[in-house]
Amino acid sequence: MRQSFLFTKTRREAPKDELSKNAQLLIRAGYVHKEMAGVYAYLPLGLAVLENIKRIVREEMNAIDSQEIVMTTLQRKDLWERTHRWDDDIVDVWFKSELKAGGEVGFGWSHEEPIGEMMKNFIVSYKDLPVSVYQFQTKLRNELRAKSGIMRGREFVMKDMYSFAGDEASHLAYYESTKPAYMNVFKRLGIGDDTYITFAAGGAFTKFSHEFQTVCEAGEDVIYLNREKGIAINEEVLTDETLTNLGVTRDSLEKVSTAEVGNIFNFGQQKAADLGLAVKTSAGEDIAVWMGSYGIGITRLMGVLVEKFSDEKGIVWPETVAPFKVHLVSLAGNDEGVRAYADAFYEDMKKAGIEVLYDDRDLRAGEKFADSDLLGLPYRVIIGKDAAAGGEIEVVHRATGTVEKKTREAVLSM
Amino acid sequence: MRQSFLFTKTRREAPKDELSKNAQLLIRAGYVHKEMAGVYAYLPLGLAVLENIKRIVREEMNAIDSQEIVMTTLQRKDLWERTHRWDDDIVDVWFKSELKAGGEVGFGWSHEEPIGEMMKNFIVSYKDLPVSVYQFQTKLRNELRAKSGIMRGREFVMKDMYSFAGDEASHLAYYESTKPAYMNVFKRLGIGDDTYITFAAGGAFTKFSHEFQTVCEAGEDVIYLNREKGIAINEEVLTDETLTNLGVTRDSLEKVSTAEVGNIFNFGQQKAADLGLAVKTSAGEDIAVWMGSYGIGITRLMGVLVEKFSDEKGIVWPETVAPFKVHLVSLAGNDEGVRAYADAFYEDMKKAGIEVLYDDRDLRAGEKFADSDLLGLPYRVIIGKDAAAGGEIEVVHRATGTVEKKTREAVLSM
Repeated sequence: MRQSFLFTKTRREAPKDELSKNAQLLIRAGYVHKEMAGVYAYLPLGLAVLENIKRIVREEMNAIDSQEIVMTTLQRKDLWERTHRWDDDIVDVWFKSELKAGGEVGFGWSHEEPIGEMMKNFIVSYKDLPVSVYQFQTKLRNELRAKSGIMRGREFVMKDMYSFAGDEASHLAYYESTKPAYMNVFKRLGIGDDTYITFAAGGAFTKFSHEFQTVCEAGEDVIYLNREKGIAINEEVLTDETLTNLGVTRDSLEKVSTAEVGNIFNFGQQKAADLGLAVKTSAGEDIAVWMGSYGIGITRLMGVLVEKFSDEKGIVWPETVAPFKVHLVSLAGNDEGVRAYADAFYEDMKKAGIEVLYDDRDLRAGEKFADSDLLGLPYRVIIGKDAAAGGEIEVVHRATGTVEKKTREAVLSM
Repeated sequence: MRQSFLFTKTRREAPKDELSKNAQLLIRAGYVHKEMAGVYAYLPLGLAVLENIKRIVREEMNAIDSQEIVMTTLQRKDLWERTHRWDDDIVDVWFKSELKAGGEVGFGWSHEEPIGEMMKNFIVSYKDLPVSVYQFQTKLRNELRAKSGIMRGREFVMKDMYSFAGDEASHLAYYESTKPAYMNVFKRLGIGDDTYITFAAGGAFTKFSHEFQTVCEAGEDVIYLNREKGIAINEEVLTDETLTNLGVTRDSLEKVSTAEVGNIFNFGQQKAADLGLAVKTSAGEDIAVWMGSYGIGITRLMGVLVEKFSDEKGIVWPETVAPFKVHLVSLAGNDEGVRAYADAFYEDMKKAGIEVLYDDRDLRAGEKFADSDLLGLPYRVIIGKDAAAGGEIEVVHRATGTVEKKTREAVLSM
């Protein structure tokens, strides 16, 4: 894409009421627009990053045989009453409204209830199991405070997945299979080494749930980490019993600020029992289905990547999610020869299948480089007089600042 | 995809409270799930159709240089008050809720106001124009009635696009360019010949807006059509003056039921004036920007395609949007040889790049064919004893019922 075509512009200052680093940088670089506190729109470059994250998550969820669907924002009161979660004293993040046709309607902050209810249409016999479904859904949560930018909003995108099994063994096997699938996602996003499967509070049927916590100063969570053994414990379950069970001592743990980028939760048979989701076993007996739920915060992940990989100059995207791989920066000025060379090189890069943003704007080199650093594409390819005269081309690696000279052919095979 | 893997199932009956043909068929075939009146979830096959429609729309909007973004569901009261559209007496489809942090919030039924407001950050000078942006957005509308299935819901997906221009000539040129772009969309969906650009009520600044009306018995609109001249008039503007201007007589018009699949609207400078969106001209003068808005109902289109192309046996998808091109139906029964042949042929079809749903289920031929007709994939490829023994393969065209015998190689190059 030509940068002169892109309607967004960089800006020097973020809005004064924006306190989080991730949103400050994303707004300044034109990736997102702040609609109100905790509510952000995604502009062309931001949408490209989101779609890249979603693609990676989609591939990994499909690989563990989950099937993509999309549920609704509008929620039925009667359904949530059945599981006692309509009450504002129990769930304090509901947005609710009156239906013109009569009655109340809720706005989806979670989708366990409607998905469980819907699956009654498709899960009748044990032969219909196991099954797993997932969606990318915009969640709406009436949070009292929203000050972490896109890491914790009133409106955000989540991948939520739900598994259904007819016996405990296949249920637990699926639950375990999501751990490597999740870690694959985080590895591909470049945060695998900094993300820990963390013991957290369970429910009626399991001692623990598991959170995926990424080391991040701006994160809202605190975990206790034994890096050597790779054991991480959320402070909410940091008891002597837990320590004994996990074979670690309190002394060996390091207190670390983290962001929760995913979680997996084992409902046992409780949720299905509440919802009345049962199957006939081969023996003809009715039993409640085993369920699990598995979340990944898509927009939160984008915020975490910005927090972790940015520097004083701007954003540093991992190559897997960057909106473009290469930032082609022309320093043509008034030199028509350089401009023509850069134009032709841009076309050649596109033909070579390289995702490229072409800064064809009529600006000084300093401004272009500052914008390029702020935008954070992995490689900056600079076309000045030397390159246009057939010399080698300067390629700057955004993450390390390394400068390499490459031939035209080498750049085209990047 | 193997049909035994797909979690959805066909059903004989739609829910009793579902009166529309499109939703009845889509629910019976497992494409959608009804959450409540006018609110539908999209299951794997339904989501695939939606994504195909979106892909076509996206390609055509990108081709007229529009840039994709995504705005927010949550809406600011102060912004909509400025254009006098917060008031429930003026806009009667708002869902609204209280923010825990104080104040009211709306849920997006349209996005002209927030997009116009956001663009103030990016449109400052006439040099920043023209620009066009679009999104695929879930719209929420508090409709009193919802009885047309996915053709008119309380929650639905719309492509809405907004153009901004610095002078009237370029504004009108962009407005006109959207007409062929829209018609390309409808042609690619197979409804080009039945879709008419229809004169409809304009606003303060234009005599007419233009609707794209598709002939459809289940449609909620009525237009007056001169097929010979290709002139279509919405009944709301059917006056003597209109007839004279358009050079048609009342006698020459046919009254036709239609569904509005798209509309384009010229705001002139009024909307930007209301929002305070102005630019400096080359002469240094401040002028309000020319704006247009351009909608396409994505979920509605899916409903219209079902209404128009279904028959007594089920759905008939146009090839461009079908979730799979081919329905491979194995009639193996207990014959392991036929099963092995079908399994291998399925793998070969995938390798050949054919989008294929493989009915590998252990059911009678009659049940499989009934399901296949209901699902409505364009081609049914049948593998029985003869085919497995090296004979020609039966290929049934869903739309026409035509049966062809093809060689294995011919099927693989479909």
